[in-house]
Amino acid sequence: MSPLGIGLIGTGFMGKCHALAYGAVRAVFGDVPAPRLELLCDTPAEKASAMAEQFGFARATDDWRALVSDPAIDIVCITTPNKLHAEMAIAALEAGKHVHCEKPMALTLDEARAMTRAAEKSGRRTMVGYNYIRNPAYQHARRLIGDGAIGRLIHFRGFVDEDYQADPNLPWTWRATQAEAGLGALGDMGCHMLSMAIGLMGPIASVIGDIRTVHETRPSPEGGAPRPVENDDIASAILTFAGGQQGLFSTSRSAWGRKNSMVFEVHGTQGTIRFDQERMNELQLFRNEGDAATQGFTTILTGPAHPPYGQFTPAAGHQLGFNDLKVIEAAEFLRAIADGKEAYPSFADALTIEEAIHAIAASSGQRIEL
Amino acid sequence: MSPLGIGLIGTGFMGKCHALAYGAVRAVFGDVPAPRLELLCDTPAEKASAMAEQFGFARATDDWRALVSDPAIDIVCITTPNKLHAEMAIAALEAGKHVHCEKPMALTLDEARAMTRAAEKSGRRTMVGYNYIRNPAYQHARRLIGDGAIGRLIHFRGFVDEDYQADPNLPWTWRATQAEAGLGALGDMGCHMLSMAIGLMGPIASVIGDIRTVHETRPSPEGGAPRPVENDDIASAILTFAGGQQGLFSTSRSAWGRKNSMVFEVHGTQGTIRFDQERMNELQLFRNEGDAATQGFTTILTGPAHPPYGQFTPAAGHQLGFNDLKVIEAAEFLRAIADGKEAYPSFADALTIEEAIHAIAASSGQRIEL
Amino acid sequence: MSPLGIGLIGTGFMGKCHALAYGAVRAVFGDVPAPRLELLCDTPAEKASAMAEQFGFARATDDWRALVSDPAIDIVCITTPNKLHAEMAIAALEAGKHVHCEKPMALTLDEARAMTRAAEKSGRRTMVGYNYIRNPAYQHARRLIGDGAIGRLIHFRGFVDEDYQADPNLPWTWRATQAEAGLGALGDMGCHMLSMAIGLMGPIASVIGDIRTVHETRPSPEGGAPRPVENDDIASAILTFAGGQQGLFSTSRSAWGRKNSMVFEVHGTQGTIRFDQERMNELQLFRNEGDAATQGFTTILTGPAHPPYGQFTPAAGHQLGFNDLKVIEAAEFLRAIADGKEAYPSFADALTIEEAIHAIAASSGQRIEL
Amino acid sequence: MSPLGIGLIGTGFMGKCHALAYGAVRAVFGDVPAPRLELLCDTPAEKASAMAEQFGFARATDDWRALVSDPAIDIVCITTPNKLHAEMAIAALEAGKHVHCEKPMALTLDEARAMTRAAEKSGRRTMVGYNYIRNPAYQHARRLIGDGAIGRLIHFRGFVDEDYQADPNLPWTWRATQAEAGLGALGDMGCHMLSMAIGLMGPIASVIGDIRTVHETRPSPEGGAPRPVENDDIASAILTFAGGQQGLFSTSRSAWGRKNSMVFEVHGTQGTIRFDQERMNELQLFRNEGDAATQGFTTILTGPAHPPYGQFTPAAGHQLGFNDLKVIEAAEFLRAIADGKEAYPSFADALTIEEAIHAIAASSGQRIEL
Repeated sequence: MSPLGIGLIGTGFMGKCHALAYGAVRAVFGDVPAPRLELLCDTPAEKASAMAEQFGFARATDDWRALVSDPAIDIVCITTPNKLHAEMAIAALEAGKHVHCEKPMALTLDEARAMTRAAEKSGRRTMVGYNYIRNPAYQHARRLIGDGAIGRLIHFRGFVDEDYQADPNLPWTWRATQAEAGLGALGDMGCHMLSMAIGLMGPIASVIGDIRTVHETRPSPEGGAPRPVENDDIASAILTFAGGQQGLFSTSRSAWGRKNSMVFEVHGTQGTIRFDQERMNELQLFRNEGDAATQGFTTILTGPAHPPYGQFTPAAGHQLGFNDLKVIEAAEFLRAIADGKEAYPSFADALTIEEAIHAIAASSGQRIEL
Repeated sequence: MSPLGIGLIGTGFMGKCHALAYGAVRAVFGDVPAPRLELLCDTPAEKASAMAEQFGFARATDDWRALVSDPAIDIVCITTPNKLHAEMAIAALEAGKHVHCEKPMALTLDEARAMTRAAEKSGRRTMVGYNYIRNPAYQHARRLIGDGAIGRLIHFRGFVDEDYQADPNLPWTWRATQAEAGLGALGDMGCHMLSMAIGLMGPIASVIGDIRTVHETRPSPEGGAPRPVENDDIASAILTFAGGQQGLFSTSRSAWGRKNSMVFEVHGTQGTIRFDQERMNELQLFRNEGDAATQGFTTILTGPAHPPYGQFTPAAGHQLGFNDLKVIEAAEFLRAIADGKEAYPSFADALTIEEAIHAIAASSGQRIEL
Repeated sequence: MSPLGIGLIGTGFMGKCHALAYGAVRAVFGDVPAPRLELLCDTPAEKASAMAEQFGFARATDDWRALVSDPAIDIVCITTPNKLHAEMAIAALEAGKHVHCEKPMALTLDEARAMTRAAEKSGRRTMVGYNYIRNPAYQHARRLIGDGAIGRLIHFRGFVDEDYQADPNLPWTWRATQAEAGLGALGDMGCHMLSMAIGLMGPIASVIGDIRTVHETRPSPEGGAPRPVENDDIASAILTFAGGQQGLFSTSRSAWGRKNSMVFEVHGTQGTIRFDQERMNELQLFRNEGDAATQGFTTILTGPAHPPYGQFTPAAGHQLGFNDLKVIEAAEFLRAIADGKEAYPSFADALTIEEAIHAIAASSGQRIEL
Repeated sequence: MSPLGIGLIGTGFMGKCHALAYGAVRAVFGDVPAPRLELLCDTPAEKASAMAEQFGFARATDDWRALVSDPAIDIVCITTPNKLHAEMAIAALEAGKHVHCEKPMALTLDEARAMTRAAEKSGRRTMVGYNYIRNPAYQHARRLIGDGAIGRLIHFRGFVDEDYQADPNLPWTWRATQAEAGLGALGDMGCHMLSMAIGLMGPIASVIGDIRTVHETRPSPEGGAPRPVENDDIASAILTFAGGQQGLFSTSRSAWGRKNSMVFEVHGTQGTIRFDQERMNELQLFRNEGDAATQGFTTILTGPAHPPYGQFTPAAGHQLGFNDLKVIEAAEFLRAIADGKEAYPSFADALTIEEAIHAIAASSGQRIEL
């Protein structure tokens, strides 16, 4: 297989992350098809050129349409603002490219559905960048559940919190608008937790949601009257999974002190699993076994016993970082392409996450007043 | 003031806790009225006598009606099974006694309301044993909030979990019945978290609840067919406080590995507070102040700076235990009696907690199916 | 057995702790001889009377010699400044009393040896108040080691730190003098860790010590020139246990942020145990067993499976506090008296701890200059 | 500046780490000279070729002497077994190459001194791979100390533990020999902690050491009689820094459950700093300031406020991993070469660490027998 040409659109937070991932993936995983950093797109053209030189891409462009139709490109990576995802992804699919798109899929459910249809029609591979599910600690949780280590699943809790919108004095930005950002905390972070929840518990069957905008206006960056915040700062929901289990979910972008807090607990009839992304190399496990006097939560430090950790370093406890997760994701995508199988989560898979976050936003619970 | 005569009904888990508390309270707090361990009630009479000797009570009886009308008794402590609370408390109040009753108040809202009416009519002091709110760490959280340390409150999460009903093979007991136990996890543990929530956030205005029985039957202790579990193993709710804030609440008696996990988080516009009863001498505080490079959650170890810790030991970090909380509670009750003021939480105060847990159980959320 | 008369000398930090312990011990442990709070000594007489009333002692005195010879007294509890221990303990033993003395035994090794000789001559029971070894978590560590859970022991680390002398601006006190305080951190806290070390690892065979006074002078409380600090703020040592294992030990009274930090690790050929007194209801255990993918340190929360925790409360994870440890210690002493057996640690046992801390202070390592 | 040609010797644990680091460094840090992955050396030749293809090197060789003299090579990275470091490094320096060598420098002090002399004579840049000091959390600790955040330094503790030699049944390997491995835990891990200690506290002036081989023999891999372990499993020392402060140091390669535990504490007159490599994205800080009721250890999660974290991801708390530290190290080396300044730690700097670990091994403390 000749190297797969990578075309990356965007050079910001996640753009750099993709560049590093496709740059390292073959060195980390000797058994994946080699990617070739072919074409980088950003605007203006000078920025694209400078970043291409830094990231090690062969060429640069300021025209994303040129990129998606470039014959040297096999995979289009989309790391642009969310409102651009749908148009770019659909164009790339129509041009016969595989598409690796950052989350959330799109601003609206309609867009996400259109992307999914385009993917089905194209016969190409798609993947949405739910990188946290690549963590060996998370995958170990899945394996434990599959092996019955905690028995029948009975309950789930998952919370994802950051504080980037906690300060009431932060000026208003596009993030506060439905038109530019779509959903708030739900779309930016909540969807990550649902990707984790579904992988552990199975599909979500129904939700009871409650969303809140706690900073109703923000100072206008141009001065003058404060401007309204149109989307959720905090969203919570009671979930029911297809297996009948109750789940509890909450996300906040205004939770002071939380930087990347993604905490989940899975309760089973024989044990409990707990994880916190802020200590992403640890997994906590309680099993109902052995002497009561020595039972407790065991803090498992990830290592080579938790694949594919050992591809990064052969020594346990040495720790993976955030960017390493994207390397694993890239490897999965490359393998799917090589094997001609669907990647996970494809656009179709990710659409179910979009449906859940939009349902949470749409639902309004029937309250009992006290 | 002559010593206040204590009449204690019950010598089990909480009976011993009350006995220790009233036995120590005057030594710990030099400024409270001295109690006198006067009369202990249990059945059979031999047990009552033996426990009276052990606990240091002057007399014993197997007749609780005799106790509540005994002229040497000023305070009746009720630590019997929940279904007996109402009758005993009302009789004691009618006999002119002050009543210190364990939680939850009663099996039903009707009983709790009758107890509240009896208290109002009696003019005596009442208190329900929500001991966790006595923790200096919890009281410090309240003080911080009152002082504005975390700004305007915007969100609450509170979870209380144990594993005493986690094992699917545990035989059926009275705890599984509405008639004997009333609510399940909600009544046994959930009410504790709501007592903490209300103290931090203010009254609860409305709830959206969802309750589940995850072990639908349990083996019959006499053999034969399994018997049904009639109440909640797990209960979750989205709360709205009177101040408009969203709250998230969950409780499980089937959460493996949790022994006395009572975790709450309060999110404010300037900071976050977190607490876990399993580390009851610690409080975590994040404040949006100072250099970003040195911000983080501070783990405060309780000490003399957190009254009334210093009454137990003058050295910080030496730690209080579960039984110490009841000593503080007893001191509060003795002071209320001496001062002729209402104690907190009186029957009227605790009734609002009963109303909340019954509303959670009664509500059935309007789900959006996916 | 008629109740044992308790005579307590001192009403400060540890005096109150003893009063609470002997007041509660019979209620907590139904199977120990009942003590009788008979006589309390402090000066002036008014203080003694007031505290006797608060603590529940029958009588008060300002004359400790009267107390130790009082015929109603069976047990003399000594909680006075260290320099008074020897004279009081020897007088009490000569008067035929059992003696429960706070740590450290005395200012000097000579005094400690004289106390030990007096104890042997008297035929009475003695105990030194190393209360931290009463912790069910600690005792569980000992049991695990005894059961071979971590294999052959190979290494020990123990550190005990507080910050009560951390502030350079704290005024000079008697604590800084050899004549009044004797050793510094070693005598005040270090001895506690050695009591724990010996219980886990066995006797200490040799030491290489290094002590430091990091605040060489302190402001004179009367103004004028700063006054010298004559004893150790920090002391460290490499130990060799009788079994040949290396141990590492350090103590500081100037460790900012440490309130009652007593951390130990025991390394064995099949596992590791770790404990921190600031989380005194937890024990961490790693065992080399099972699948590498699920190995890790297990955090054991103490409960009824760790005797005598269950005497305080039947529910795991509810937590004991600092004062509860003294209740257990008092129970042990009462049992030893009832059974006519030596208590642990008797004066003879505690003398070995004194020898170790004085050896650390005396030794001066042979350094290799770089 | 044209790209610097990288010649890497070794493709194991640290070889892969170097390959990834030099492959990513320019993408991560836009402002460093671009390296070019030129030549990879391993044996046999087939392995070298395969790994060159995987790691992205242009050419491969099985002859390290050819590599060090190859004109396209500017920087020689040495990641071979320790006993080969000296010969390779000296040859590379003599060939005019810059040398990036893994730790420890060499088997013996003589070798390390010869390497240092060769470096001085060559005028080329050298660096020893003490990667843990690149951690933004560690560098933040240094900055805090430099800014006086914890006052005058008074004490240090540092422990580094793993369990890769904990199992008594592990077969004997070359690691057990002086001739192949040199020192044991001291050389493999202890030197890392000393690199951290020196960066925080300054040079080490003297040591009192005590080393132990706790598994005195190991099963022969060929069967037959067990073979002797010739070097330290555990090493401890009391240090004195040039500034007069006492330090405590210990390392074990037989500490069950420790995977990459590198814990240090720095005690100052106004605060304490604590770090654990197993939670490498956290730093704990206590400062004596503000209200006692809100003091405590603050857990700082690293983020863009801790350079150069922000080069990897702009979002705090997202976490760096082990391999990222080598990227930072590579950037430092490239900058030193570009700027014509000494890198830190150069061979001369690292020689002081070698001197310290050999002094610990050589010293034998003067014990006081009890």
